[in-house]
Amino acid sequence: MKGPISLEMGSGGELMREFISQHILTTFANPILKELLDASHLPYGLAFTTDSYVIDPIFFPGGDIGSLSVNGTVNDLVVSGAKPEFISLALIIEEGFSYDDLERILQSIKLAAIEAGVQVVTGDTKVVRRGQADKIYINTSGIGRLIGRPELSKVVPGDNLIVTGPVGDHSVAILVARGDFGFEAPVKSDCAPLNFLLPLWQREVKWMRDITRGGLATILCELAEKLPYSILIEEKKIPLSPPVQAVSEFLGFDPLYLACEGRAVILAPAHRSQEILTYLHQHPLGQGATIIGTIENRVGRPGELLLRTKTGGLRLLEPLTTELLPRIC
Amino acid sequence: MKGPISLEMGSGGELMREFISQHILTTFANPILKELLDASHLPYGLAFTTDSYVIDPIFFPGGDIGSLSVNGTVNDLVVSGAKPEFISLALIIEEGFSYDDLERILQSIKLAAIEAGVQVVTGDTKVVRRGQADKIYINTSGIGRLIGRPELSKVVPGDNLIVTGPVGDHSVAILVARGDFGFEAPVKSDCAPLNFLLPLWQREVKWMRDITRGGLATILCELAEKLPYSILIEEKKIPLSPPVQAVSEFLGFDPLYLACEGRAVILAPAHRSQEILTYLHQHPLGQGATIIGTIENRVGRPGELLLRTKTGGLRLLEPLTTELLPRIC
Repeated sequence: MKGPISLEMGSGGELMREFISQHILTTFANPILKELLDASHLPYGLAFTTDSYVIDPIFFPGGDIGSLSVNGTVNDLVVSGAKPEFISLALIIEEGFSYDDLERILQSIKLAAIEAGVQVVTGDTKVVRRGQADKIYINTSGIGRLIGRPELSKVVPGDNLIVTGPVGDHSVAILVARGDFGFEAPVKSDCAPLNFLLPLWQREVKWMRDITRGGLATILCELAEKLPYSILIEEKKIPLSPPVQAVSEFLGFDPLYLACEGRAVILAPAHRSQEILTYLHQHPLGQGATIIGTIENRVGRPGELLLRTKTGGLRLLEPLTTELLPRIC
Repeated sequence: MKGPISLEMGSGGELMREFISQHILTTFANPILKELLDASHLPYGLAFTTDSYVIDPIFFPGGDIGSLSVNGTVNDLVVSGAKPEFISLALIIEEGFSYDDLERILQSIKLAAIEAGVQVVTGDTKVVRRGQADKIYINTSGIGRLIGRPELSKVVPGDNLIVTGPVGDHSVAILVARGDFGFEAPVKSDCAPLNFLLPLWQREVKWMRDITRGGLATILCELAEKLPYSILIEEKKIPLSPPVQAVSEFLGFDPLYLACEGRAVILAPAHRSQEILTYLHQHPLGQGATIIGTIENRVGRPGELLLRTKTGGLRLLEPLTTELLPRIC
């Protein structure tokens, strides 16, 4: 890779994956990092993850940079098989930022941490001059106790892909909050902790991912690449809230590439899927859970992600390549 | 606290301590955070710490933002009693930053991690638009295995304060590298990992701190506050490199408030001090180690930090209150 770094490198899409494989993995070659889980599995039965949050705007319908900083890191632990326990909190603040807004963010972090059952145990504060940051950036790292682990070697054709609810609300809420397109829509970010998924690790779940940057399609492309099978998802089964549907149609966005901050996709054996759906439907954050596809060995080629469109055709899906919405998280 | 946030809040000095005690500790009240160690002590026999690095310039004599990001976090673990093992690496990059510089920083992180015996096991990359960050900011969080712990309850009058080498080189190197004062000086940052201090936890050391933001004086003020004794240090015993001495005199800086990134101050019982000095002198990073003061119950009042000046007077030292050098780390 040469030349200046572009926004796409932070998009969660193809260029970021290229950067990680060419620069990060080769530089810091070690077996733990190489797994590229949402949270790395350490000895001691612990998982460890980090994320920086640079979202714009910092306050948005359904959350703010504070709750996002807790939930994003908590969710990385949950989907990698760990019960979230401890988080760090590092603030980079632009000179001139208001104490009132900072206090509001800290209170939001406090409430989100209580809801997610984590303790903020260590922190750091840096202040940079005006124009050297945009209001506030937050990094949280998280430590959780491992209670399960993704086991892709056990995946077989017929396994089901379950999403826990409608996708894309976070991206659309941010888009609307920015006001760039001059319209209003009654949409809130889905920002929430996914701890309620933890019991699924005892129900033969083989893999989970929270649907963040890059959206459902990018995440499933990454999954497909690691499998000797293809993945087939059904467009008509993918749950979308009415505002996400409307905004996507209006702006020409494909909701399969929009981000969530409180949704996950779960890979489960067929014989467990109904039981898992029943469990998910009992939780407020899982009421919209539904099976959207399956692991296949009859359509497509190994490693491919295929979409059966509403009109019945098959479309090959690729990972996100352009940056639709910088600073979405 | 009201009004806009100022650079001083990130200085490591008085305003930052006020912010931490009034906002952070009250919001996230928990016993682990309350200890306010450089790294928090978790169950599982582990320590956990986080720091964001916003240093300007990113390349400087003796190091760069990459080596600093590893050593700063490693040193927080060491001085809190933990052997550093794992670190996370989160990058916030300004759009347009060069891949070559990024690659140089990654290589520097790699080498620093090898030297400090830590593995980079998890990471994150965000890219923000031009003008929303200044080149690159890095957060590292670190996990270490506890092999000792600070025990301030065991501190008694007569205990010695030992610094591991000359103080202030990091601040002066950054100052010179910025070129703001239009002079050159043959000074390099002391940026280095302090792992060689780990064996001291088996030699009855009661407390250690790395000397970073706020400098020796601020750190010792914080120590003194926690003790039922005063601390007396001798100005003539505080080791300074010739460039730090020259630049401090020239610019009127007090070197007691300048930062290091590879120096520590150690609190040890008198009967162990000689043995500890002998040990330190054998290591390249400890060759300048020397006793600079003692815990006192005969001069000053409990909680005070006193300096015996070169002319024999006593001066009460306060924590840093103004921001001498923003973005020093």
